[in-house]
Amino acid sequence: MDRMLELYHAEPVANSMKVLICLKEKGIEFVSHYVDLLRFEQHEPEFVELNPNGQVPVLVHEGTVITESTVINEYLEDVFPEPRLRPRDPVSRARMRIWSKFVDEYFCPALSMIGWHILVRRIAKALDKDELERVLDRIPLKEQRDKWATVAGDSFTEAQLADSRRKCRVSVERMEAILARQKWLACAEYSLADLNTYSMAAGLPRMMPDVLNEQNGPHVLDWLSRMNARPAVQAALEMPNKVPETLRAFGT
Amino acid sequence: MDRMLELYHAEPVANSMKVLICLKEKGIEFVSHYVDLLRFEQHEPEFVELNPNGQVPVLVHEGTVITESTVINEYLEDVFPEPRLRPRDPVSRARMRIWSKFVDEYFCPALSMIGWHILVRRIAKALDKDELERVLDRIPLKEQRDKWATVAGDSFTEAQLADSRRKCRVSVERMEAILARQKWLACAEYSLADLNTYSMAAGLPRMMPDVLNEQNGPHVLDWLSRMNARPAVQAALEMPNKVPETLRAFGT
Repeated sequence: MDRMLELYHAEPVANSMKVLICLKEKGIEFVSHYVDLLRFEQHEPEFVELNPNGQVPVLVHEGTVITESTVINEYLEDVFPEPRLRPRDPVSRARMRIWSKFVDEYFCPALSMIGWHILVRRIAKALDKDELERVLDRIPLKEQRDKWATVAGDSFTEAQLADSRRKCRVSVERMEAILARQKWLACAEYSLADLNTYSMAAGLPRMMPDVLNEQNGPHVLDWLSRMNARPAVQAALEMPNKVPETLRAFGT
Repeated sequence: MDRMLELYHAEPVANSMKVLICLKEKGIEFVSHYVDLLRFEQHEPEFVELNPNGQVPVLVHEGTVITESTVINEYLEDVFPEPRLRPRDPVSRARMRIWSKFVDEYFCPALSMIGWHILVRRIAKALDKDELERVLDRIPLKEQRDKWATVAGDSFTEAQLADSRRKCRVSVERMEAILARQKWLACAEYSLADLNTYSMAAGLPRMMPDVLNEQNGPHVLDWLSRMNARPAVQAALEMPNKVPETLRAFGT
């Protein structure tokens, strides 16, 4: 294995998981660099040099840096087209992109707020004042700094959290409506839309059973089982995970 | 001209402008359906049937509906690849997508808040209580309904507006950094990243001269002039515009 393809990623959950599944589906060999978010390695100078936003995952291909998990997966598709994870038909391809955009802009931020409130809050609360200052000082993006400061303080308001839970419910409703009429999220064919969404939604039945359960999301649950059964998903789940069990929420 | 390609769009500004420029660049004939946002035609039942989100632009190609301007432009590229507006090189293509994603998720929402505060607020304030109720009742997306209710009331807070102005400044800084080292936003080649961004940024020098001016954005201003000079941009600007001069802010 040469070092032509390298991935900087955290545990196999959320944005890191999206790219890990894509690489495993395509059977692409890569050098894995685990970035330990609990040790704030994503804010260390050498990592920020790679990605000025201080966020995982980051793909390095023949020395070129590519960021943003949704874009990384389209890039992998452009460079390693087989097996195909982007429908050949332009309409289905547009549906794949519309859905992934909805996940990136609506579902993911809502789910992320809940995750920050439940999990990152515990990490932030465990830091003393000086440690917290040191962490905040090194976060390059103002938006990320603000979120850390929020969960280290009084966290999000009840109204904000309720709105995020509502958005998670709307997202599940939309998924259920699509999956009741077709096998996968973009079309009849498995695509990036499915693995992008699975990486966010995998833990829903366990963490938010009021949002996704047999009553309101039978087709979503069936789709999750089919996703879980994929060898590429299983292989991605076997990637290193340094997060203690007590802090794992949104994985399977 | 057959009716194979139809575009539902508003005046040549923002999201409608993105798709209009793309169609003009490619020289594609299309049937234009003007949706008058000042008459709330985007919330009328027949339009909502086309796009349940009640938003323009909407492309209808051989009877198939495609929404989301960024996705529509990638779709047009997939179906009508010439002249090429998506770089052939996968790295430049990824840069095009990373930048368009930044515009969609960061720059555009910030700019949009300023636009709502200045312009949509005037429209909302001109409605009496009953008219406003009728407008709100028909808006399909909760997020859009909330924005209308906000600008019809006390509008956004000073802190929210200041944060949006800050984000506009950050966006200009990023554009300036890129355009100081290369001719176009994705790479050395004109691409969807440029026309997507132009459609948002065209009015900045006039409407927010503190955010974009000769001192902080000489390369951005040069890029804007090159964009304005393009025949496709000129042709798009000649499309119908029913917005009174006094309510035009973000166009050229």
